[in-house]
Amino acid sequence: MLSQRNLALGRRRSSIRELFEYGRRRKAEIGEENVFDFSIGNPSVPTPEHVGSVMRRLIDECDPVQLHGYTSAAGDAGVRAAVADNLNRRFGGSVSPDLIYMTCGAAASLTITLSAIMCEGDEVIVLTPCFPEYRVFIESAGGRVVEVPCDGDLQPDIGAMAAALTDRTKAVIINSPNNPTGAVYTRERLEGLAELLGSRKNPIYLISDEPYRELTYGEAEVPFVPSFYRRTVICYSFSKSLSLPGERIGYICVSPEMDEARDLFDAVCGAGRSLGFVCAPSLLQRTVAECLDDTADINVYRRNRDRLYTALTDMGYSAVHPDGAFYLFLKALEDDAVAFCERAKRYELLLVPSDDFGCRGYARVSYCVTPEQIERALPAFEALYNEYESEKTK
Amino acid sequence: MLSQRNLALGRRRSSIRELFEYGRRRKAEIGEENVFDFSIGNPSVPTPEHVGSVMRRLIDECDPVQLHGYTSAAGDAGVRAAVADNLNRRFGGSVSPDLIYMTCGAAASLTITLSAIMCEGDEVIVLTPCFPEYRVFIESAGGRVVEVPCDGDLQPDIGAMAAALTDRTKAVIINSPNNPTGAVYTRERLEGLAELLGSRKNPIYLISDEPYRELTYGEAEVPFVPSFYRRTVICYSFSKSLSLPGERIGYICVSPEMDEARDLFDAVCGAGRSLGFVCAPSLLQRTVAECLDDTADINVYRRNRDRLYTALTDMGYSAVHPDGAFYLFLKALEDDAVAFCERAKRYELLLVPSDDFGCRGYARVSYCVTPEQIERALPAFEALYNEYESEKTK
Repeated sequence: MLSQRNLALGRRRSSIRELFEYGRRRKAEIGEENVFDFSIGNPSVPTPEHVGSVMRRLIDECDPVQLHGYTSAAGDAGVRAAVADNLNRRFGGSVSPDLIYMTCGAAASLTITLSAIMCEGDEVIVLTPCFPEYRVFIESAGGRVVEVPCDGDLQPDIGAMAAALTDRTKAVIINSPNNPTGAVYTRERLEGLAELLGSRKNPIYLISDEPYRELTYGEAEVPFVPSFYRRTVICYSFSKSLSLPGERIGYICVSPEMDEARDLFDAVCGAGRSLGFVCAPSLLQRTVAECLDDTADINVYRRNRDRLYTALTDMGYSAVHPDGAFYLFLKALEDDAVAFCERAKRYELLLVPSDDFGCRGYARVSYCVTPEQIERALPAFEALYNEYESEKTK
Repeated sequence: MLSQRNLALGRRRSSIRELFEYGRRRKAEIGEENVFDFSIGNPSVPTPEHVGSVMRRLIDECDPVQLHGYTSAAGDAGVRAAVADNLNRRFGGSVSPDLIYMTCGAAASLTITLSAIMCEGDEVIVLTPCFPEYRVFIESAGGRVVEVPCDGDLQPDIGAMAAALTDRTKAVIINSPNNPTGAVYTRERLEGLAELLGSRKNPIYLISDEPYRELTYGEAEVPFVPSFYRRTVICYSFSKSLSLPGERIGYICVSPEMDEARDLFDAVCGAGRSLGFVCAPSLLQRTVAECLDDTADINVYRRNRDRLYTALTDMGYSAVHPDGAFYLFLKALEDDAVAFCERAKRYELLLVPSDDFGCRGYARVSYCVTPEQIERALPAFEALYNEYESEKTK
C-alpha cells in the first residue's frame, strides 16, 4: 500500500550512504580516529573565512524579513545576475540571468532538469563509471538509463557513444572532474562528443554536472561546455567548491544558445514547482552570490592526492592518476570489488566498491579527509595489501 | 520535446506567485508604499532575535566542517531528537526521533509524503477551499485529486467526506489553521473525520499540513492529530512560526501509532532521495532545533486581523472571522472573484481570487503585512466598495 519503488529506495540506501552510516556507528564504537572513512565526498577543508563573514554580515545588517523571506522561485534577481556575470567573466559566455535557476544543490539541479525534459520512452545516457544516484534521478523522472563505459583512460569513448545513441536519446549526463574517478575530460574528447550529438536529427541535451569544476590540480582544463554545444544545461553546486554540502545550494544554467532556451527554462520552473522546491535557501543564495570567486583551500586535496597516490602505488596498488575532484579510483586486489571493500572494513578502511558506479573491480577512495587520517590509514592499506599478497603465495 | 506538464506548470505560475511577481514589478514602477500587496504568505514580522543569535553563535563557535557538512538524509540525530522531545512535551505524544524526517519546508514535506504513499490509481482528498499547490503535488506524485467542499462554517463536512471516500482513497490532506480561510478545524469535527476514516477497510493516511499550527488568536485549539488518528503524518514547516519562509526548513513526523510506521518512514526516505532532497539545510536544522519554543511576534498578526476584519465589515464587506493563520477570506463584491480581484488591482490592492483555492466568489487577503500597509490600504478598499455600490444604484 506504499510506493514500492520508494520503499525499496529507502530501505536499500545507496552503498555510499550505507557506508557513511556504518562509519558513524563504528566511530561511536571505537573512536573517530580509529576509523579510516574514505566513503563520502564530505569536504574536510572548512568553508573559506569569507563565507562565514558574509553570513554574519547578512544576519547582522539585513532586514530579516527580506533576508529570510521567499525569493522568486528561480532565485533572487541580484543573485542570478551575479552568477551569470561571474560565468560570463570567467568563460567569455553570454549566459543570461533569466536562464539561471537557483537550486538546493546538485541533486536538485539534476532532478529538476531531468523532470523538465523527460517525455515517455526517453533514454538518458550516463558515462560509466558514474555517480550512482544518476540512475535514481533518471528513473524518478520517468526515463530509461543507458550506460556507456568510458575508455581505458576513463575518457568518453566517442565510438561507444555513437553506437548507443537512438532516436529516443533525450540527454547525456557528463561529470568532469569526475566522481568516482577523478578524471577530467579533455577538451578534444568533449568537442568530439558535442560534434557527435549535434549531428543527430533528434535534439539531445548535454547535462553537465559540475560540482567539481573548481577542484583541479595542475594543468587540467575544465572546458566551458556551452561554448561548443548549444543544447547544454549546467547543473552546478557550491557543496564542494565552498565546502557547504549540508547547506544545499547550487544552480541550473540553461545555455542561451539553444532556440528553445526560454521553453526549457519554463519547464525547469515547472519541474521545480512540482517536485516541491519553492526556492533555494535564501541566506545561502545571498551568501554564495558574494563568494563566487572563492574556493575552500583545495591545496589540501592536492597534497592528499599526491601523498595517497604515491604511497599506495609505492605499496603495490594501482590507480589512474586523478587530475581533479577528490577521488582516487583504486584497482581492487581481487576481481570482486565488494568483497575487497568488505575485507578493507576489517582494517577499518571504508572504501566504496565500484559496482555501484557501473563498473567492476575498483574501489573509490574519497580523499577529502584530513592529512592526518591519510597518515594513520596508510599502515591499514599496507596490511590489507599484505594480506592479499600472503594469500597469493600460499 | 520537453515535459509538457512541467512546461505548462512553469508557464502558468500559480496565481499567487503570478500576483506576487506582478506586485514586484508594480512596486518598482510606482513605489513600494503605493502597492497594497495582500497576495502572499510572506511573514512581515521579523524572525525572533533568538533565531539570529543562534545562527550567529553556530557560525562563530562550531567547526564549519561539521556545521555545514552533510547530515544523515533524515536529518541530524540531535535535531530529530529535539523535535520529537518538543512535540512529546507539548502534546503528550510518543513521537519517536526515528520517525522524524527533516525537510526543505512544507512543500517538500508534502511532495515527499505523497510520493512515499502513492500507488497507481490512488485518490487523495483535499478539503476546499485549500492551498492550490496540493493539486500540483498530488498529481506529480501520480495521484488523483478529489475535492470535498467544507461546510458553511468552513469546517470539514463529515457527510460530504463519507460520500467521497472510495476503495482507492489513499489519503486526506487537512490544513488547520487553514490557508486560505483562517479557519481552525474544531476537535469535534476532526475526531468525527478520524472516526470516519478509521471505519474504512482500506488504510487511509491523514496528512496534517501544519505550517500555521503556532498561529492562532484567542481560544482556538489546534488538536494534535496523532492523539486520535493513528495513520497520521504531520507535515510541518518553520516558515511561518519563525518567519523563515525563504530558508526552507520543516519536517515530516510519522505517527508511531500505526503498524507500518517503519515502512512508511523508509518510503519517505526513498521518496526524498528520488526527488533530489539530499538533506535539509544543515545550519537551519541546527538553528530551529534550538528555537522550537519560539515564535515570531504573532500579536502583530492578531492586531492586523482585528483591524482589517472590523474595518472591512464596517465598510460593508463580509467575511468569516478567522481564528488562525494570517488570511481573511473576503466575500467578493461580484460573483466572479477573478473579475473582482482584477478590479481591486486598479486600486493597487493585490488579492488572490478564490477560484484557485477550489471555490468561487471569495478573495484571500493575506494580512501578514505591516500595520501601516493596512492603514494605507483601507481607503482603497473603501473606494473599491463604493465603486460596486455606485454601479448597483445606477
